Amino acid sequence: MYTAKVIGATGYGGIGIIELLLRHPEVKLQTLVAKESAGTTLSSLYPHLLGFCDMPVVDPDSEAAQEPADIVFFSTPDRVGMYGARAELERGAKVIDYSGDFRANTVEDYAEYARRIGKDPVHASPDLLPESVYGAAELHRADLTPARRLVGNPGCFAISCILGLAPAAAAKAFRANSVICDCKSGISGAGKKTAAAHHYPNRYDMMNAYRLSGHQHVCEIERELGKLAGAPVTVTFTAQVVPVCRGIMSCLYADLLEPKTEEQMLEIYRDFYKDSPFIRVFPSTASIGSMHVRGTNYANLVVSVDPRTNRLRVVSYIDNLMKGQAGSACQAMNLILGLPETMALDHPGFYP
Amino acid sequence: MYTAKVIGATGYGGIGIIELLLRHPEVKLQTLVAKESAGTTLSSLYPHLLGFCDMPVVDPDSEAAQEPADIVFFSTPDRVGMYGARAELERGAKVIDYSGDFRANTVEDYAEYARRIGKDPVHASPDLLPESVYGAAELHRADLTPARRLVGNPGCFAISCILGLAPAAAAKAFRANSVICDCKSGISGAGKKTAAAHHYPNRYDMMNAYRLSGHQHVCEIERELGKLAGAPVTVTFTAQVVPVCRGIMSCLYADLLEPKTEEQMLEIYRDFYKDSPFIRVFPSTASIGSMHVRGTNYANLVVSVDPRTNRLRVVSYIDNLMKGQAGSACQAMNLILGLPETMALDHPGFYP
Amino acid sequence: MYTAKVIGATGYGGIGIIELLLRHPEVKLQTLVAKESAGTTLSSLYPHLLGFCDMPVVDPDSEAAQEPADIVFFSTPDRVGMYGARAELERGAKVIDYSGDFRANTVEDYAEYARRIGKDPVHASPDLLPESVYGAAELHRADLTPARRLVGNPGCFAISCILGLAPAAAAKAFRANSVICDCKSGISGAGKKTAAAHHYPNRYDMMNAYRLSGHQHVCEIERELGKLAGAPVTVTFTAQVVPVCRGIMSCLYADLLEPKTEEQMLEIYRDFYKDSPFIRVFPSTASIGSMHVRGTNYANLVVSVDPRTNRLRVVSYIDNLMKGQAGSACQAMNLILGLPETMALDHPGFYP
Amino acid sequence: MYTAKVIGATGYGGIGIIELLLRHPEVKLQTLVAKESAGTTLSSLYPHLLGFCDMPVVDPDSEAAQEPADIVFFSTPDRVGMYGARAELERGAKVIDYSGDFRANTVEDYAEYARRIGKDPVHASPDLLPESVYGAAELHRADLTPARRLVGNPGCFAISCILGLAPAAAAKAFRANSVICDCKSGISGAGKKTAAAHHYPNRYDMMNAYRLSGHQHVCEIERELGKLAGAPVTVTFTAQVVPVCRGIMSCLYADLLEPKTEEQMLEIYRDFYKDSPFIRVFPSTASIGSMHVRGTNYANLVVSVDPRTNRLRVVSYIDNLMKGQAGSACQAMNLILGLPETMALDHPGFYP
Repeated sequence: MYTAKVIGATGYGGIGIIELLLRHPEVKLQTLVAKESAGTTLSSLYPHLLGFCDMPVVDPDSEAAQEPADIVFFSTPDRVGMYGARAELERGAKVIDYSGDFRANTVEDYAEYARRIGKDPVHASPDLLPESVYGAAELHRADLTPARRLVGNPGCFAISCILGLAPAAAAKAFRANSVICDCKSGISGAGKKTAAAHHYPNRYDMMNAYRLSGHQHVCEIERELGKLAGAPVTVTFTAQVVPVCRGIMSCLYADLLEPKTEEQMLEIYRDFYKDSPFIRVFPSTASIGSMHVRGTNYANLVVSVDPRTNRLRVVSYIDNLMKGQAGSACQAMNLILGLPETMALDHPGFYP
Repeated sequence: MYTAKVIGATGYGGIGIIELLLRHPEVKLQTLVAKESAGTTLSSLYPHLLGFCDMPVVDPDSEAAQEPADIVFFSTPDRVGMYGARAELERGAKVIDYSGDFRANTVEDYAEYARRIGKDPVHASPDLLPESVYGAAELHRADLTPARRLVGNPGCFAISCILGLAPAAAAKAFRANSVICDCKSGISGAGKKTAAAHHYPNRYDMMNAYRLSGHQHVCEIERELGKLAGAPVTVTFTAQVVPVCRGIMSCLYADLLEPKTEEQMLEIYRDFYKDSPFIRVFPSTASIGSMHVRGTNYANLVVSVDPRTNRLRVVSYIDNLMKGQAGSACQAMNLILGLPETMALDHPGFYP
Repeated sequence: MYTAKVIGATGYGGIGIIELLLRHPEVKLQTLVAKESAGTTLSSLYPHLLGFCDMPVVDPDSEAAQEPADIVFFSTPDRVGMYGARAELERGAKVIDYSGDFRANTVEDYAEYARRIGKDPVHASPDLLPESVYGAAELHRADLTPARRLVGNPGCFAISCILGLAPAAAAKAFRANSVICDCKSGISGAGKKTAAAHHYPNRYDMMNAYRLSGHQHVCEIERELGKLAGAPVTVTFTAQVVPVCRGIMSCLYADLLEPKTEEQMLEIYRDFYKDSPFIRVFPSTASIGSMHVRGTNYANLVVSVDPRTNRLRVVSYIDNLMKGQAGSACQAMNLILGLPETMALDHPGFYP
Repeated sequence: MYTAKVIGATGYGGIGIIELLLRHPEVKLQTLVAKESAGTTLSSLYPHLLGFCDMPVVDPDSEAAQEPADIVFFSTPDRVGMYGARAELERGAKVIDYSGDFRANTVEDYAEYARRIGKDPVHASPDLLPESVYGAAELHRADLTPARRLVGNPGCFAISCILGLAPAAAAKAFRANSVICDCKSGISGAGKKTAAAHHYPNRYDMMNAYRLSGHQHVCEIERELGKLAGAPVTVTFTAQVVPVCRGIMSCLYADLLEPKTEEQMLEIYRDFYKDSPFIRVFPSTASIGSMHVRGTNYANLVVSVDPRTNRLRVVSYIDNLMKGQAGSACQAMNLILGLPETMALDHPGFYP
């Protein structure tokens, strides 16, 4: 039985991994850490966990928070994990960080990302960057082995786009600067922090695009697709919010270099993901939507080609809090602990 | 390993028990029956179950539908189970019926119920009525034994009211004709059948009361509370719909015969439910709502007393599709199969 | 043409009266005052008003904020209007206050209210209390004349309950301590201030009761009904929130002293409101809900009697931001300015 | 005072124009026609109109339905107006049809459209096609004169895309086959007819793309943009539904032929729409969303350029039932009746 520590336990990302670990047969919650609400029990903050997780939340500076664990999740904002990871690694833990701190392997890539979010571009632990792996199990399964001790969990929008275009990129099927990612997220993606834009009356019948000048997830999308394509990929990205709680629907467009039919593209996708248990590939006729992945680690990909313009279009559906966050983190954890990839994740959500 | 058959497998009630049985260690889905959609797989209708339940749905008149099972759920409208239960019982099955067909033990009680829903008041299998047990495990645990083979699953509104008032009734604490049940349901309570009233644009910013002339669930509320109180109880009941998907919030009022404090009432409630793992009792200061029971079999009861009027007020929260339907059915099934009461049910929902 | 000043212009209550005055043929917006956002235009905060109301918002302490107006709305929290009203009255304005500051006529009544909301029970302008009128036009039309210069706008829950029970109270039809008000509000009732409870992910599939220990609106309900009944009325009140934006649905219960039929009660109600243009009375068979009053000043009352318990039940629907706030304020303003009661208010909302 | 007849009065499109005409100072509702519900009053179907529009709904085949009117709206499905328009024109009416029947001017264009929706490609009144004008007032104001008697009202998705790209097309700014229209609609766009996909429980937390093989609105988008660009334009179009009631958010992408800054594009847009009172143009930094046009005839256009890919991106927000349907119809009516373009339309919605 492995022990787990969750830092940032009281946010939606923390709750997500806690819910998963509560059903995990090989990993056991040991320490819950959060700045706010330290001293209370988790279930007093999240009453759906009454009787399931009544552990106390401890302050990051408390002694209890320093207790070594086998696996440590930093479900924290940018520039927290980069300061805290080293101590955990030195205590022998493996670390999975949810923020952008460890998604890049070079200080240059980190700096580009940091600038997009208006943060200090200097990484606090540059020596750790090279050993981190980007936690998209479908692309980096070979690197997510028990030898690995540091993972940068993908961004929610990013993983939906990367999974949706990876097979085409790997097949070098599209023009490198033709990629458009039109992404709509549910509101839980913004976390539990209140904001006027997510106040129910301002949001219930409201859809809007935001941060049009450039979303930080573009960095990792371009990097991952570029690696697969063997050439730089440039993406136009539009982040949007719609009044659902959970879910991302990303419409992904790219101009095909050579005419392909939908059937041909489907074959490319199915082959690429043949060993990926959480990817489902559908033809354009499928009646599929975000509710069908809600509460799960699945990505549903609907693949189509517009024959008139020879343009690939993939609609990628994920649960932003699962495949987009805690689910991917659990999947990566399983792999670096040497456990079956699907452990604690192979269950459907509930409907409706 | 027991085998299960679900008749009416493609409605929300059917899906609910299927989702539960997919995680049940001792019961295995064997046959899915439905009139509509026979011939397709369940997962083509409910794509969240792809890879989890790809079994075919068979027609009620098909040979496959007659295959004996250990436990049979009739997740069907009124007056279906009363015709089909006998054959299943004769094949050796235990039967749990979701409708009003087997909630009463006498033809008179059934007739009263049937009149309220505008149906034929003559029961088709009157000889079976005496052996049926009303499937509220918290009240009838002693009768839900392996010797039992027929259960009438409670109505969703009814169980929320009965659980909310049972301890006070058993304590003979309130005036018999002073009970008011003000009940609000999420829309999934109306099932998967489309209706103008549940068309998204007509419903999204809409709350309304309906069927003010008398809701059929009143029958079982009055009967169950009357039994506990040892005297007839008369209830004013108001059914309402609000734009949530899952959840019932019932505000229950009754005039106390003798002054009681909230603390005294809490003690009565806690004592009454001390062996009921799915009941949580809270004081009036609790911050609890319908989302905290969503996807689970729990009933959260907030108990308070208005000292100015000496009136008991209980706010009862359940998930209408779980404690209000499939969860209660699974709980009753566990008991009549001799399995632990909480099997497949002791998990939290996800949040948010 | 009268001039209007709105203090607290940037909250939902301020926007409500601004939207109404923009279409008012006899009253013109002159000054918009708010502490936050002073210096910007209203339409930059509320872009739906671009081109309709691009006036600047001025600080309460600025000179511009002191400009005399014919009518001044204090759309402000408790204990603001009681300090500011005098200066406006002295400048010759009529004043309508949205808070609880001027709903009572005595310091004792105010003190009781203030204690319920945890505020200083000492009123800052006790000499003004006797001349204020409670702005429920349907009950106090005779006092809302051009001679009147101070109005306390009713609370949203309160007005829904008072309108729903006033005819029965006036007819002395019910037992004085048997009244139960089970009230559900949309979230806009909590105003524009963000709060965890109204953060979209925490609210979208959530219903809950709150402040069970006693809601402050009880004071004015008991006072107004008591006056009509000619005897003290004691109310059990349950405030609830459900995920709609606009709307209050109050289910009101009271034990009838003498048996009455629904038809008799309907007659009492229709007669009582025969000169009230914004009240619609319906029998129990009506298919009516909160969406049918959304965006309007109407109160829809569904009247029924439970003959088994001889209990009156009225379901009262209003738009909490209109009849529950800005609409009532506009209606009262019309009356004290000597304008037709329905001016700027006699329009339907849009559907769906 | 002109008289109006609405055919298809009981759908959302009919209600939309009725709500507008109720406040129109120069046009008066005279006849409401609908197949379903004939014989009842409109306000019994739409209780928010009680006291505002209690007119009876008459059957299309009744004598009352033949009464001549000055303006007739066919708020009817495809292939109704093409049969009924002639009789109305002969009675001296002007006709505005909501469907695709009169959006094209040639039988060939109609046939292409009809094929996309699986209808008979032969138009029933081909002689009327040449005289119809596509009712996008912003593009065809010069043709919408009192001499005009037949208008084909634009499709809701189509008008959002056309308005969003027209200035760039007219400026010949983009590559003709590079246009992508990624469009999200509220559910009211599907009309009042119930459907499983719009059943509240199936929709509340659900977003999905649909009809990926080709949406019929592509025809009019390509035709209108092609006319402006002076060359054929080919569009990849993705229709999506998200759980809002009213609103369309279309993200429109096109590769610029020559580098342009956002400021340059804004100038082109502002200039193009300088005489269009219902178009608002915003820079990429604007905080604008679908709620800000809800209930109104405005189109809010957010214009940006991705400088890395030299790609134009416009986010176009409309209310699908107003600018996307009844609002555009009213605007066109005003013009062909010789009335001010903004009559009955120059009001804001309510918020929130």
